[in-house]
Amino acid sequence: MDKYEKVIELAKRRGFLWNSFELYGGAAGFYDYGPLGSTLKRRIEHIWRELYVIHEGLMEIETPTIGIEEVFVASGHVGGFSDPLCECKKCGEAFRADHLVDDIVEVADALSNTELDALIRNNDIKCPECGGDLGDAYEFNLMFRTAIGPGSGRAGYMRPETAQGMFVNFQRLLKFYRDKLPFGATQIGKSYRNEISPRQGVIRLREFTQAEAEIFIDPRDKTHPNFERFAGTVLNLYSEHGQEHGTTLQVTIGDAVKQGIIAHEFLAYHIALTNHFLRRVGISPDHLRFRQHKKNEMAHYAIDCWDAEIKTDRFGWIEVVGIADRTDFDLNAHAKTSKTELSVYIEYDEPEMVTSFVVKPEMGKLGPAFKGKAKDVADALKAMTREELEQDGITVVVDGEEFIVSPGLVKFTEETVKVSGETVVPHVIEPSFGIDRILYCTMEHAFNEEMVAVHEGRDGKESKDPKEESRIVFKLQSEVAPVQVAVLPLMTKSELIGPANKIVALVRDKGLLVSYDDSGTIGRRYRRNDEIGTPYSITIDYESLDDRSVTIRDRDSMDQVRTPIEGIEDLIYELVYGGREFKTAGTPV
Amino acid sequence: MDKYEKVIELAKRRGFLWNSFELYGGAAGFYDYGPLGSTLKRRIEHIWRELYVIHEGLMEIETPTIGIEEVFVASGHVGGFSDPLCECKKCGEAFRADHLVDDIVEVADALSNTELDALIRNNDIKCPECGGDLGDAYEFNLMFRTAIGPGSGRAGYMRPETAQGMFVNFQRLLKFYRDKLPFGATQIGKSYRNEISPRQGVIRLREFTQAEAEIFIDPRDKTHPNFERFAGTVLNLYSEHGQEHGTTLQVTIGDAVKQGIIAHEFLAYHIALTNHFLRRVGISPDHLRFRQHKKNEMAHYAIDCWDAEIKTDRFGWIEVVGIADRTDFDLNAHAKTSKTELSVYIEYDEPEMVTSFVVKPEMGKLGPAFKGKAKDVADALKAMTREELEQDGITVVVDGEEFIVSPGLVKFTEETVKVSGETVVPHVIEPSFGIDRILYCTMEHAFNEEMVAVHEGRDGKESKDPKEESRIVFKLQSEVAPVQVAVLPLMTKSELIGPANKIVALVRDKGLLVSYDDSGTIGRRYRRNDEIGTPYSITIDYESLDDRSVTIRDRDSMDQVRTPIEGIEDLIYELVYGGREFKTAGTPV
Repeated sequence: MDKYEKVIELAKRRGFLWNSFELYGGAAGFYDYGPLGSTLKRRIEHIWRELYVIHEGLMEIETPTIGIEEVFVASGHVGGFSDPLCECKKCGEAFRADHLVDDIVEVADALSNTELDALIRNNDIKCPECGGDLGDAYEFNLMFRTAIGPGSGRAGYMRPETAQGMFVNFQRLLKFYRDKLPFGATQIGKSYRNEISPRQGVIRLREFTQAEAEIFIDPRDKTHPNFERFAGTVLNLYSEHGQEHGTTLQVTIGDAVKQGIIAHEFLAYHIALTNHFLRRVGISPDHLRFRQHKKNEMAHYAIDCWDAEIKTDRFGWIEVVGIADRTDFDLNAHAKTSKTELSVYIEYDEPEMVTSFVVKPEMGKLGPAFKGKAKDVADALKAMTREELEQDGITVVVDGEEFIVSPGLVKFTEETVKVSGETVVPHVIEPSFGIDRILYCTMEHAFNEEMVAVHEGRDGKESKDPKEESRIVFKLQSEVAPVQVAVLPLMTKSELIGPANKIVALVRDKGLLVSYDDSGTIGRRYRRNDEIGTPYSITIDYESLDDRSVTIRDRDSMDQVRTPIEGIEDLIYELVYGGREFKTAGTPV
Repeated sequence: MDKYEKVIELAKRRGFLWNSFELYGGAAGFYDYGPLGSTLKRRIEHIWRELYVIHEGLMEIETPTIGIEEVFVASGHVGGFSDPLCECKKCGEAFRADHLVDDIVEVADALSNTELDALIRNNDIKCPECGGDLGDAYEFNLMFRTAIGPGSGRAGYMRPETAQGMFVNFQRLLKFYRDKLPFGATQIGKSYRNEISPRQGVIRLREFTQAEAEIFIDPRDKTHPNFERFAGTVLNLYSEHGQEHGTTLQVTIGDAVKQGIIAHEFLAYHIALTNHFLRRVGISPDHLRFRQHKKNEMAHYAIDCWDAEIKTDRFGWIEVVGIADRTDFDLNAHAKTSKTELSVYIEYDEPEMVTSFVVKPEMGKLGPAFKGKAKDVADALKAMTREELEQDGITVVVDGEEFIVSPGLVKFTEETVKVSGETVVPHVIEPSFGIDRILYCTMEHAFNEEMVAVHEGRDGKESKDPKEESRIVFKLQSEVAPVQVAVLPLMTKSELIGPANKIVALVRDKGLLVSYDDSGTIGRRYRRNDEIGTPYSITIDYESLDDRSVTIRDRDSMDQVRTPIEGIEDLIYELVYGGREFKTAGTPV
């Protein structure tokens, strides 16, 4: 079993992840979150909201998952959101054409369908399922299509990203933020991608959860007001240049901007914030890097793009977040398709004095002189330069006819006017998170199998003869663990159950995720909680009834301390959220 | 403008609700939640999770919104989830056939398509759009259909309810809860209904959010362990009997069960919990009733169903929650379709002694007597009763041939064996919440227009001559308000902005939703916060710099108190969550 298999086995057994529709044989590309997986996901989303919505002030919105065709025509998804599909002429099985030539060329996904066909023919590639001949590659649109309303209905698509919901609401959002840049909105929700043939389990889903922010900024100023917060943060940067040499750079965010590795402060700030988030939910820093998109893989309109990539045991480095400067592409696309101006009027801090040359034909004199042509002559004069107008006899051409205007019939002057602002189309900075992949990676990075000395017999009593045993432990961050504290009466006796339930209530009222478990030996319950990643377990024993104290066990060290029941909820809270060290939590047992 | 229009106008203007895809002319049946609406929705969902997931222990799961066909064949949605559709022969517009005859008959939705056609013809009903002739009514399936994978793909549907995700995971859940009834799971997520022609704004959506619990209980015992908690709660019950007479009963939950109005304790507990939830999010008790389904509207398998209905200004009483005892229907349906046993083995508290009659043919003697037929004779004997076996000569028929068995060749006896349990198919109690409708109703019930005396001039200074002005105020519960406290420096001056931002940070770290607002006069900012339902506003003025105190304004009474900055975060927290009375918050101003 490789690590992926081990993690998924545990995840299924303990209620984190289940294959969807298993009762009916399942369907590739769909996974269910069981009780613990769903809670873990809520915790990860909660931290994302805290960072992006509360602290960055990027308010959350919620738009439908079904979209009308116009939106995805404008966004380019109807035209271009596709993968090359290749079907077996014999068994009818469908394949990603680029995946079939993966081993032969380096950037298979950059090839045209004609190039793919040629490679398949020249290398005599056959159907991996039945060995039959393969048909020509063609583009398969990856949006799930449906119809809205009765009859053939109006074309609708399951959204391939949440981002378009923010773009089409640009005007509403601009008004909400009282016409001031920068501003932004976020969305956490389902997106869909009708994969041709998903074969990577929970890594490639047809229905997945995105957390996206679209931040509208002033295109003339891409500094970030809080850049200093992260300027000293060191990241693993796998830049375009580095990729040519296979080298990852360890550099501060501040230096990366100074050296022009990252395009500008605003993007760099969001790369660093992404790092902060991923670390906080439990991604190991040595399995995390930021990879810059190469010029040839980046969308033509984008200025700079970086992916957060996490190293996994089976799939290698996988992309979990994209952070891009999308420029004004999306707003311009929707402006054009909807025939609506999507821009911001930005007032200057100080009005600017702008000097311009103004021509004032004297209509009272031009009229009698040129009759019906006076208006045309005046317009022609207005378009002239100072030099032309300073001639003695000014020659004007109207409809191919020449007129001579004497200097007294036209005045010209330089005028200085106050301009107080200008209209700009904002640029968009987009951090886009794949929550399901991040969740899987937190599990893989937290997964540990270790040999430990067990001092406790199967009966739950201390054994004189400790023995080595292997244990599986999910070392999840306390903050994201679906059970943060387990309360365990040593025996299933009412005199212990009562006080245990009181502790459950105390800790729960503090907002912590708590479970009560009285089934099986204490050792077995510790193992069970190790497997689901419960950082702390509280055991109530007969001594507790006398001395009003309990034992707390630390998941990672398996150390135990004795501590009073009084104030236990605050103690656990500090252990989980306050960074309090376990060894300060009581008297070692 | 009726109240619906007023609420929606405010909701649009202030960023609660927006028409989806407005940039492209919109689409009926879809709404966006703006920044404040989305936050309000998260707050409502948060309270639901606290009650159902944390306190009831019904763990949340998350299953895909796209479902495979097998699931919805078993659930009956492929066959029966439809509305009668009627199209205009001239303009092609589609209508709900039952809605066309709404004014003519009382229970239009109970009519067959033939009955609807007859009514439409006999009453000469024409197309409401163009006056054209209407075609025959036919059933239109309300699930959005799509295809999973390439080619014609595998049929998929957008789920019409979250419930099926729990049912198909019954076995996984049973194992998670260690094979003990009752247990349950919940889901908060999107569901879909491809309405023929939705015309009721946010009340009838094609994509909506459900919060559902499926609780699996022992069919032999429908008492509830915590029933006492709600036994004394008085509810407005609009029972089947009451509906015949148009009377609503005010009765305690305990009496309703005793008198047989509500079928049993478990259902009654969940009706009361629904009431508790709706009250907590801000539904007025006098606009809330529970309506029992009539026998003829209830699904044939259900034992008892109640809808929570809320009174709205435009639409009258609308259903927002359904609470049903669905019996073993869903599990049996999936068991049959999937050919899998979906049941629980329940161990008795005490093993039962069960006595049965056992026949023991003596094979050693039957063999020689009946040769090749001995086995068949023995089987025939085993199926006989004591009376038959007590005959002198026992007649046995095998393959139409008669055999006489003498009494010495068969023994029979009564045996008593210990039976320690039995296998049952659990019944399901389902509370199903429509979150979007509930959210709209909290807004409608919170919406107030009132005349108030304004003591403050347009310049923000106190005016000697108070005048009457109308104000709009959203009296949302503090707990659900999208902004719980606004921090307002009296003037946009750095010496006030600094301390204001410090208060923002303090209050935010306490987990409260806080906004900072320094634009416009203080009076205008109070109005703006009244309109979005901010319960408390903190004003920092020049005095604050000297006396380290601030003014807090109460939204509903518009009273103001002066209170120290020190500890302000705890004070606001108690006002919002602790039920602390505003008048105790400081010195009246």
